[in-house]
Amino acid sequence: MTLEARLAAARAGDARATARLLTIVENDEPEAAAILRATYPQAGRALVVGVTGPPGGGKSTLVSRLVTAYRTRQARVAVVAVDPSSPFTGGAILGDRIRMRDQFLDEGVFIRSMASRGASGGLARASGRVVGVLDALGHEVVLVETVGVGQEEVEVMRVAGTVCLVTVPGLGDDIQAIKAGVLEIADVLVVNKADKPGADEAARDLQMMLTLARPRAGAWRPPIVRTTATSGEGVAELVEAVAAHAAWSAESGDGLRRRREAARVEVETLLREALLRRLEGRVGRERLGDAVARVAERQIDPFAAVEELLGG
Amino acid sequence: MTLEARLAAARAGDARATARLLTIVENDEPEAAAILRATYPQAGRALVVGVTGPPGGGKSTLVSRLVTAYRTRQARVAVVAVDPSSPFTGGAILGDRIRMRDQFLDEGVFIRSMASRGASGGLARASGRVVGVLDALGHEVVLVETVGVGQEEVEVMRVAGTVCLVTVPGLGDDIQAIKAGVLEIADVLVVNKADKPGADEAARDLQMMLTLARPRAGAWRPPIVRTTATSGEGVAELVEAVAAHAAWSAESGDGLRRRREAARVEVETLLREALLRRLEGRVGRERLGDAVARVAERQIDPFAAVEELLGG
Repeated sequence: MTLEARLAAARAGDARATARLLTIVENDEPEAAAILRATYPQAGRALVVGVTGPPGGGKSTLVSRLVTAYRTRQARVAVVAVDPSSPFTGGAILGDRIRMRDQFLDEGVFIRSMASRGASGGLARASGRVVGVLDALGHEVVLVETVGVGQEEVEVMRVAGTVCLVTVPGLGDDIQAIKAGVLEIADVLVVNKADKPGADEAARDLQMMLTLARPRAGAWRPPIVRTTATSGEGVAELVEAVAAHAAWSAESGDGLRRRREAARVEVETLLREALLRRLEGRVGRERLGDAVARVAERQIDPFAAVEELLGG
Repeated sequence: MTLEARLAAARAGDARATARLLTIVENDEPEAAAILRATYPQAGRALVVGVTGPPGGGKSTLVSRLVTAYRTRQARVAVVAVDPSSPFTGGAILGDRIRMRDQFLDEGVFIRSMASRGASGGLARASGRVVGVLDALGHEVVLVETVGVGQEEVEVMRVAGTVCLVTVPGLGDDIQAIKAGVLEIADVLVVNKADKPGADEAARDLQMMLTLARPRAGAWRPPIVRTTATSGEGVAELVEAVAAHAAWSAESGDGLRRRREAARVEVETLLREALLRRLEGRVGRERLGDAVARVAERQIDPFAAVEELLGG
């Protein structure tokens, strides 16, 4: 199948064509750049919602509920489930996805799992591109889910227009570290499993942290939404909170700031790669390998190696 | 204080001078390159031991035990505790470190906490440099501890000559995902809290996974060591297992392969930065910013922006 035919099929909603396009982009196969270039102008329309938080927070069930909620109003919804804790195997955990079985049968819902690749920062970049392609292919809503609260998750979440941080009652001291870091990227705070004991305390803790953070004037103040994903309670409120943030984001210019930052990172990354390839072509792989070997043996330091290679 | 004086003081064991040098390197302050260049030739001698694994595995206590064990034989030991789950605050969790209080008072032990920075891959790079400086300053053993099992932790562990993966009995299904990913970088497998029920099953599970992994001929087969960090049981065996791996690593050439890979990553990263700076100087920040803005507005795609900037 030609690339044009595959793109047309994917735009028309063909899940297999979409999956193949995403695999090419994810693995950075030779056709990846052509796909990204062809889809780039059409992207930027979807509501991209990130869902992150510590394991055991019921995120998958919540995402499943969000899919159902958005599907009542939107033609096409996509889910990208990113798992940075699988660094090498390439196969993201599908277990949780089984729960989305019903939605797998819904042709208006496309679900993609992604695991980490070799290169650092590779997952955030690959997932950002996958989200962009899904957006360009006509998905009105793209939900991006990550498990965990590390730097990698924060990077993945940069693609989202609105980030929901999902916590649960009773995480105890463990939550402290998490909140301190990820709180800064959260636009909506969710206390899931709100029917469990401790939900009030969890919400109060979050409220206190928000108050302590003392936001700048005009900044967005993340609302706290209580949900019970298993029953669906609070999901409508969550959808509303996301919509409110998206509206604020468009009006305040914060969305544009985020898009500019994402564009800057992508352009600079591509530039660095192109420049390094040019240099390799100029000085030759052999001289580069020789410099690296001498650095490894500590005969020269890395800065000296760079000076040597750029000087010649 | 001049850089030379500070380096001399740090080499002589002055903890404040050492801490200041590391802060400069960590924050990439103007003097960072000078420090890295001055220390690079002296590094490469320390035994660098990585300790990683899921939270709640008793890693801090185990590291504390290892410090005590190495201190009976070595003059100077350093600990670098890296916390990728604190992306922005810059202050790594010191709570666990409090347990090392006794060792804080031991002048032969230097302890450093690090949290994640803005840039992706930044923490692995910064911690690698910090370890290199500590090595060059004369620490015979450098222990690098991370909490978690994501890609970031895997990257941080690349600086270690020997990586210990610490698990505990009864992690249940959660451990499956973890093991699948991080197992591939582990040189020594540790079942800590081996006095707890389920230690046999945990060791058996790991053994089975190792058997299933079917290593190539001549490859290192990670031993499984049982420890009870709280009592100190098994710590001597762990020290022995690390020494055995280090000896194999030197003999087999695997250590050299790792050092070459680390050198390649460092040289290429510096090259990319230098090349981008040169380009910025050539085309000007304004033209670069303009291209980024048009990419953000989706007027052009990132590849077109790169072609435009490199063409001019």
